[in-house]
Amino acid sequence: MLSELLSARLDRAAAATLRRQLYDALRELILAGRLKAGQRLPASRELAGDLGVARNTVIDAYAQLTAEGYLAGRIGAGTFVAETLPDLPPAPAPKLPAPSRRKLRLSQRAEAVLLEPAIEQGGAFAPCVPDLTLFPFGEWQRLLSRAWRRVRTRDTHYAEPGGHPELRAAIAEYLQIARQVNCTPQQVVIVNAAQQGLDLAARLLADAGERVWVEDPGYPGARRVFRAGNLEVVPIGLDEEGIAPSAEDWRAPPRLIYVTPSHQFPLGTVMSLARRRELLDRAARHDSFIIEDDYDGEFRFTGRPIASLQGIDDASRVIYLGTFSKALFPGLRLGYMVLPEAIAERFAYAAGQLNFEGRQVEQAALAAFIREGHFGSHVRRMRMVYGERSRLMAEVWQHALGDASPLVGTDTGMHAVAMLPRGRDRAISEAAAAEGIIAQSLASFCLARPRQGGLVLGYGAVHEKDIRRLGAKLAQVVARSL
Amino acid sequence: MLSELLSARLDRAAAATLRRQLYDALRELILAGRLKAGQRLPASRELAGDLGVARNTVIDAYAQLTAEGYLAGRIGAGTFVAETLPDLPPAPAPKLPAPSRRKLRLSQRAEAVLLEPAIEQGGAFAPCVPDLTLFPFGEWQRLLSRAWRRVRTRDTHYAEPGGHPELRAAIAEYLQIARQVNCTPQQVVIVNAAQQGLDLAARLLADAGERVWVEDPGYPGARRVFRAGNLEVVPIGLDEEGIAPSAEDWRAPPRLIYVTPSHQFPLGTVMSLARRRELLDRAARHDSFIIEDDYDGEFRFTGRPIASLQGIDDASRVIYLGTFSKALFPGLRLGYMVLPEAIAERFAYAAGQLNFEGRQVEQAALAAFIREGHFGSHVRRMRMVYGERSRLMAEVWQHALGDASPLVGTDTGMHAVAMLPRGRDRAISEAAAAEGIIAQSLASFCLARPRQGGLVLGYGAVHEKDIRRLGAKLAQVVARSL
Repeated sequence: MLSELLSARLDRAAAATLRRQLYDALRELILAGRLKAGQRLPASRELAGDLGVARNTVIDAYAQLTAEGYLAGRIGAGTFVAETLPDLPPAPAPKLPAPSRRKLRLSQRAEAVLLEPAIEQGGAFAPCVPDLTLFPFGEWQRLLSRAWRRVRTRDTHYAEPGGHPELRAAIAEYLQIARQVNCTPQQVVIVNAAQQGLDLAARLLADAGERVWVEDPGYPGARRVFRAGNLEVVPIGLDEEGIAPSAEDWRAPPRLIYVTPSHQFPLGTVMSLARRRELLDRAARHDSFIIEDDYDGEFRFTGRPIASLQGIDDASRVIYLGTFSKALFPGLRLGYMVLPEAIAERFAYAAGQLNFEGRQVEQAALAAFIREGHFGSHVRRMRMVYGERSRLMAEVWQHALGDASPLVGTDTGMHAVAMLPRGRDRAISEAAAAEGIIAQSLASFCLARPRQGGLVLGYGAVHEKDIRRLGAKLAQVVARSL
Repeated sequence: MLSELLSARLDRAAAATLRRQLYDALRELILAGRLKAGQRLPASRELAGDLGVARNTVIDAYAQLTAEGYLAGRIGAGTFVAETLPDLPPAPAPKLPAPSRRKLRLSQRAEAVLLEPAIEQGGAFAPCVPDLTLFPFGEWQRLLSRAWRRVRTRDTHYAEPGGHPELRAAIAEYLQIARQVNCTPQQVVIVNAAQQGLDLAARLLADAGERVWVEDPGYPGARRVFRAGNLEVVPIGLDEEGIAPSAEDWRAPPRLIYVTPSHQFPLGTVMSLARRRELLDRAARHDSFIIEDDYDGEFRFTGRPIASLQGIDDASRVIYLGTFSKALFPGLRLGYMVLPEAIAERFAYAAGQLNFEGRQVEQAALAAFIREGHFGSHVRRMRMVYGERSRLMAEVWQHALGDASPLVGTDTGMHAVAMLPRGRDRAISEAAAAEGIIAQSLASFCLARPRQGGLVLGYGAVHEKDIRRLGAKLAQVVARSL
């Protein structure tokens, strides 16, 4: 009986699925002539019962063999071994292709991408890691489920350029109030978080070979994307007022200027109002666009919040970039750009052609999360948590090292920088790694020769007791090296 | 009393939200001196009750004013008008930036992007539109909810390069059985659907200025992305065996060859085995990569399924590309690439650096959707539905036009092509549009001078009665024009 022939060939402990095993067994029996042309196979329900497998397992195996020409007939009307077997050679046994001897032509840009190490996720004191244990995932899931229950067919098609209208409106309103960004919903373009926004800016606002200025030290992720977009990345140094291009620099003006004015990454400097006005003025005169990356502007603990550069831009020079990766969670993969009015529609259309947008259900859920106050509540809560951790980090560091290593940039976000003598930070970072502590050197964020040494210390996802314990341990490593 | 002062300023019919109105009203009262420095404000719950607004509205307005320095104190401990008001100029009244006079520097590639019209969504007979009314969204939502209930914090962080291991494994297993693709899970890289896959292939496997061959007629979306990646797009004509490069063409061999061998888009030709072997052989000799876009290979109605090009490639030349946009729904934004083993890991890593991946919860839900048989069931069901619609379309067309316009490519997928005399199809397409029917001309899919005329007719999302009614109406338009 067929089920016995098959049973003997099914091994529940094997790595292959039962469906695959059943498919293989049936094909083998057909090819070996043990199942004859025209022979009727048992109904899927019957065979499943005999074999003790799910009915879908049998249906899938039958369907696959039918599709390949080994079986004929339709499910429901009966299934038969085909009268003539397929004359194509049977599928080769799975084998790995011989490794290509050809050098992989990852382009120049991609080679650059491969050479820079990714920032490690998690662990004390990796920067830019939010504390997700405090995120209200229950609330998020409730809103997501609600959005799915309300779904209409067209919400599961491609999205219109720019993203879901409700989300664009919610973001515009939030930015107007919280960040003094001047915008209409039509200027907001939803992206798969900031990295894609940078990629789009590089590709849609600049031509290959044009210059982009980046802060030095600065955010490596942006530099990687700009290089991948074939732009010439020019490092510009910083002073206490922010990015500080010289008169010489301005003689070769850039197409794009990438800045983090509210909380310079990684140093934490706030760009002064005078520097902001100067930058805007020069950008307008030299036909440059400014990309304002407000990556953690939600989390300012002390003093007044800093109005966005975009909000004081009269010349439509600024592209404002924000993400929900820090304030919500990185895996969400949603962020936004605010484009100057005159180019927003064309930009959204071109971006859509490169990526095809969708995910309207998630976007509707996120709009509700913002409008119903959950976003605001979570940001307020995390601002307190991160503020507390920042103060604790400063206290531990000051207690252990005093003036030997001042901790700067502690009034916003989820990281600070412990200043060190120049040229010592890489070795200290390695010594810390040997103790299991992530403490990235300032040098690793620099393109040009570093002017200062330092350690970039993320405390966002580090609980208080670990800040005390590991902060003290790291301080010992530093003290030993100084 | 404060609540009366505020009440008078809140207008529920206004466009601005109550939160924004409350914020504006409080700030105005403070700036006007009607709320004095040090004055205590009512608790949020109390004021919300007096005003008849949600408590979050008050909390948000208080928080924003506190953050800006107009109020002081902490929620819970009481809120007071600040002793010294912020000395920054108050936020400018929302205004639109003056339109930029500078010509938007959308790059050459982006200009090309902007010039090609997007394929319209929906409506008879737009191509490539699946019938989403038959998708089991209830089942999908159940699996998504289950994945969210099981979520661990790390699932909401960035994903590892290549995507969720369970999804990569489920796809590898499916492709081995259903499409005879030779691969391990490590060769599968999850992408935001096929468009991003093409973009990554263009940017990571080729250098700017290198050639990519595309089928002509062919898929406009691929050409757009290749141009945006600064590649030189070279149209190659087709014969009845598929893409047909001449000896002359091979004298300038391409870096990439983009083909749709299982169901040429849009003509529906199946590439012959001889042509497949020739293409693989030549690609290996000339150091080219072949991108095999298997955009609707799941939906073959008649005959044996066509094994993938990847499955008979011994030289690691083929990058196989698949999407869930047709078999599931476009808004999902998930697809996959299968890379040659030797480059898969580096490709996944470089792709991750350009995009940062996440969405592990959705990916886990999709893995379950595949493993638990729902994907297979849905594909089988839709194969029958599309097969029925294809037969009906052919019947309606044959009945109305006979040999005057043969319908070809009806054995797979969700569109067919009605052949017409060369040079007549654009005018007929316009006449159809005037009647409210989408019937894209074959000419609109061509880069070089078209060799044939035709109409590309999508029937996937067109219900049977509309195929009869609108098919007959379109046939009349054609008959009148011939």
